[in-house]
Amino acid sequence: MRLTHRRAVLRLAEPFTISRSTSVEEEVLWVELAHDGVSGCGEAEPQDHYGETVDGAEAFLDQAAGLLGDDPFALEAIGRRLAELPGNQAAKSALDAALHDLCGKLVGQPVWRLLGLERGGPPTSWTIWLGDPDDMARRAETVDPRFRRLKLKLGGRDGLDVERVRAVRGVTDLPLQVDVNEYWDVDEALEAVPELAALGVQYVEQPLSAGDPEGSRLRNESPLPIFVDEDCHTLRDVRGCAERSHGIVIKLAKSGGIREAVRMAQAARALGLGVMLGCMIESGLGIAAACQIGSLCDHLDLDGNLLLAEDPWPGIDFADGVQLPSEQPGLGVHEAVSGAR
Amino acid sequence: MRLTHRRAVLRLAEPFTISRSTSVEEEVLWVELAHDGVSGCGEAEPQDHYGETVDGAEAFLDQAAGLLGDDPFALEAIGRRLAELPGNQAAKSALDAALHDLCGKLVGQPVWRLLGLERGGPPTSWTIWLGDPDDMARRAETVDPRFRRLKLKLGGRDGLDVERVRAVRGVTDLPLQVDVNEYWDVDEALEAVPELAALGVQYVEQPLSAGDPEGSRLRNESPLPIFVDEDCHTLRDVRGCAERSHGIVIKLAKSGGIREAVRMAQAARALGLGVMLGCMIESGLGIAAACQIGSLCDHLDLDGNLLLAEDPWPGIDFADGVQLPSEQPGLGVHEAVSGAR
Repeated sequence: MRLTHRRAVLRLAEPFTISRSTSVEEEVLWVELAHDGVSGCGEAEPQDHYGETVDGAEAFLDQAAGLLGDDPFALEAIGRRLAELPGNQAAKSALDAALHDLCGKLVGQPVWRLLGLERGGPPTSWTIWLGDPDDMARRAETVDPRFRRLKLKLGGRDGLDVERVRAVRGVTDLPLQVDVNEYWDVDEALEAVPELAALGVQYVEQPLSAGDPEGSRLRNESPLPIFVDEDCHTLRDVRGCAERSHGIVIKLAKSGGIREAVRMAQAARALGLGVMLGCMIESGLGIAAACQIGSLCDHLDLDGNLLLAEDPWPGIDFADGVQLPSEQPGLGVHEAVSGAR
Repeated sequence: MRLTHRRAVLRLAEPFTISRSTSVEEEVLWVELAHDGVSGCGEAEPQDHYGETVDGAEAFLDQAAGLLGDDPFALEAIGRRLAELPGNQAAKSALDAALHDLCGKLVGQPVWRLLGLERGGPPTSWTIWLGDPDDMARRAETVDPRFRRLKLKLGGRDGLDVERVRAVRGVTDLPLQVDVNEYWDVDEALEAVPELAALGVQYVEQPLSAGDPEGSRLRNESPLPIFVDEDCHTLRDVRGCAERSHGIVIKLAKSGGIREAVRMAQAARALGLGVMLGCMIESGLGIAAACQIGSLCDHLDLDGNLLLAEDPWPGIDFADGVQLPSEQPGLGVHEAVSGAR
């Protein structure tokens, strides 16, 4: 298999703020694996927060090229060889996506079908990024009516997080989910969560810092399910998450791809944990990989490509709030020919 | 998809004795799923011990035929519909195998490759069935030299189980594994296991009755890894097994097929458990399904078809102690044309 990669910039329709930072654009890598006259593609979104960079991902990919071998179906063996190289989960995820895309195209089947899964899954949430309560309510009012779940980014550090949720609840009856991105301590969490429960919030994502020793206390006392994101990267983390959460947040950029994500979902089920599948700011190429396994999950936050000014990899069908993967072979997305990028 | 099934009798090369019974032949069901001019096959070995019968499996299959739908790739959805019908794991496993066979044939790939796995796995053990110590040693001496592991069936209820292992150890340097099939209590186990460790046994399979409340004590005090079989049927059992064992024994006739078996293996890894994949008395058709996922396991006991006077479904390659699945599409086995069955 021949590996190539190039940088690309994804432009957001509007600036996106979470507790850690504000973004207007995101640099990503697009990888392509050619084999037997067929190409498979994948996208990497290295996250500063996880110590990953686009430069590092490029260096990793150049090193990884020699480990891929000549059989794109040998996913387990390739994954084991790549695991010998540390970190770079985003770049590993791009390779895993490209391999899946290639396998699907080689046998003429969409990846979700090759995995024995159904097309689609639960509705994706739409993210209302951090802002003043009034501002967040205003944004919630103007959400595309096709969305059936809202995810509110909290962590304002101003004592107004519950007010944010209350303001949004004042303008919509949609199910609400909140993502605190590690910004509360256990006392703030235990104070806020009952109020959020009263406001009809479905679950709270990563309220505490990853590894916070109060995690299991919060799990046991919280009236709402706690889902952990920064606490849960790969399969080896899932067991520990059963002690500090009611569910895990899988992201391909953390797991290193679809294959490990499926393993994590299975392990979560064995442990009685819920499963949420999230995303970064991604084009349709990145989201298409996640979409393939949407039906394995309880909650999906796969709005990454819908946040962009223009999706350079169209092919996902956003229908009735659900991000439906294409019925075409592989990941089912194709680069737009506008070529301006 | 059109489902048909028929009975068949597998004749053993020699009578096979475990602690519960002696067999000279085994009645099984062969199922066939036809779709788009292609056929997928699978074998069911209903186990009395699990309350399953060939009659019951036939009735189940007749009922299940209406739940299969028209897409053999929809494994998750089909599995969910079949799970609504209670029990009959052996028959479910036959359907799962036939579906995998069909999918592989439809896309021209062996199942192990479709699953992203490597061909093969660890060497299979060869079973030395229960007998007097001298008799078991005599059998061990004449084992086909291609075998690289021996599994000794214990549970003689005569205080001679350790002597059995000692006698076999006296005639072979091969790694030894023992399967007690629930015949010890915790005191017998704690007395025997250190002696077995000194004789170089690798692990002890199901020493106690399923659900024995002393399971976790034995796990904590045993100098050898304890693997549980009768304690572990499907994914939902795996979590509990982490408290009473160091590893699980997966069998397709318990799990209901390849798909649940893979889930169990993933969950076991997340819990730090070892994985053994075992079999019943099966033809190459049944063993071929198990072989596909051999590479996910630490130990394999897949000698079922090698115990037969003649394998009616050749296609597995027994090479250097390893049961290698075929490189042909699907399960890669085909019914022998002798037609005497």
